[in-house]
Amino acid sequence: MTLTTKSEWKSFGGTLSVHEHESKVTGTPMTFAVYSPPGDGPFPVLWYLSGLTCNWSNVMEKSGLQRIASELGLMIIAPDTSPRGDNVANDDAYDLGQGAGFYLSATQEPWAQHYKMDEYILSELTRLVAKNFNGDMERQGVFGHSMGGHGAITFALKNPDHFKSCSAFSPITSPSVVPWGEKAFIAYLGKDKSAWAAYDATELVRSGHTTEAHILIDTGLADDFREVHLKPEIFKGVCEAAGQKLTSRLQEGYDHSYYFVATFMEDHLRWHAEALK
Amino acid sequence: MTLTTKSEWKSFGGTLSVHEHESKVTGTPMTFAVYSPPGDGPFPVLWYLSGLTCNWSNVMEKSGLQRIASELGLMIIAPDTSPRGDNVANDDAYDLGQGAGFYLSATQEPWAQHYKMDEYILSELTRLVAKNFNGDMERQGVFGHSMGGHGAITFALKNPDHFKSCSAFSPITSPSVVPWGEKAFIAYLGKDKSAWAAYDATELVRSGHTTEAHILIDTGLADDFREVHLKPEIFKGVCEAAGQKLTSRLQEGYDHSYYFVATFMEDHLRWHAEALK
Repeated sequence: MTLTTKSEWKSFGGTLSVHEHESKVTGTPMTFAVYSPPGDGPFPVLWYLSGLTCNWSNVMEKSGLQRIASELGLMIIAPDTSPRGDNVANDDAYDLGQGAGFYLSATQEPWAQHYKMDEYILSELTRLVAKNFNGDMERQGVFGHSMGGHGAITFALKNPDHFKSCSAFSPITSPSVVPWGEKAFIAYLGKDKSAWAAYDATELVRSGHTTEAHILIDTGLADDFREVHLKPEIFKGVCEAAGQKLTSRLQEGYDHSYYFVATFMEDHLRWHAEALK
Repeated sequence: MTLTTKSEWKSFGGTLSVHEHESKVTGTPMTFAVYSPPGDGPFPVLWYLSGLTCNWSNVMEKSGLQRIASELGLMIIAPDTSPRGDNVANDDAYDLGQGAGFYLSATQEPWAQHYKMDEYILSELTRLVAKNFNGDMERQGVFGHSMGGHGAITFALKNPDHFKSCSAFSPITSPSVVPWGEKAFIAYLGKDKSAWAAYDATELVRSGHTTEAHILIDTGLADDFREVHLKPEIFKGVCEAAGQKLTSRLQEGYDHSYYFVATFMEDHLRWHAEALK
């Protein structure tokens, strides 16, 4: 697995770098970013999964995470949100196809060939990071925003030994019953809803998947997507019923943007650092 | 002067807002952003002048200034870098025309009609901010990045009573002798170099313009533009000769990007807050 470094910047004493490699899982070139804090490591490894339309750059440019990751000694990995390329299936809508991989393995055409973001991140990219960067792979956490917040929660619930910490900014939490999720699941997984439960955070908790990680969720009360797509109250209910530790906060006046993510990034990174120390 | 609010976000407890108005000075609609920290004010007013190709969004999205401005109680104003529009003169190059106003009043065609960014900011936009936001106009500072760092220094040197603090990230400091500056000055001011001195920070200090503000400059040692376009050593020399207070730092490993600006933003905001308190 050859890694090509595309860009590198010094930032808050550490190094932000962007890398490309040929993925066997997605069958495409894939790009991801790594923030390595100053010091010798090995560092706890925190995966950030981005939301619809995003790639590595949104969180690295807009969230200010480098300042806090530098202080706390956290390595942050930001994968892309889907396979990309002229030969990769796509859709004109922002919420399907390239930029909208939903962190699952598609079973339906035309998506099944390349759209395997869960397998890609959890196996191939994890091995590649372990081999090339000074991360402590026994101390991994996962977080994300919106579609990626949901990806983070499902990753943590399905891989409780792999991820010791989990949090999310304004995540989708019950995709099977909201428009963003229904559209993506029908396209990627087909109309048979029995295939959806394995990628639905609410259904996972209902069916007994829990993690010892105490999940932190922040959602803005001024988030236009909250009532239609995010529905944090549903997930809170199933976690309470299942005994899954969860702190789900509603933040007055904040919307879905990175201005919101940036405001609460320090809280989230300290939450992970405490769990991963 | 009617102000139309185009966007508004809560950020670090304060409010980031973007506004448009019809400018009599530039003869175009102009857009600017304001970050108002939480609290009642009136707040010291700090002007941020952006670099080539930028508008209000670069610093507001990428520098993380809201966190520190919120803590310190600073109001930040981010004007655009030029007039814009289909009827406004432009050039295909990134370093001339729209996005590259150089904070001066052009005297040459086709620029003279609309390109008056110094007059626009110092008179019209300042009055508009004073009227519509809760700033303490007796406590104003100015800073900026690259072309805007130079704009900030010239604003402070030419208006020492107006601006009580000044700093810059990787500023151009001697535009008359570097390619970016020569190209812009020939286009906007003409080939007669006697007209350039009023817009050249180095020439201003040489000719006796100083400010009681202690100027802070940070420049990255890995900045690809440093040796050709920025030349901080020339400005340092004239300031020493003229007794202008200046702290000019070279930062190991940092380039010209907002990853650099973000890293040192806290230093700069504390520098201004101390001077404006």
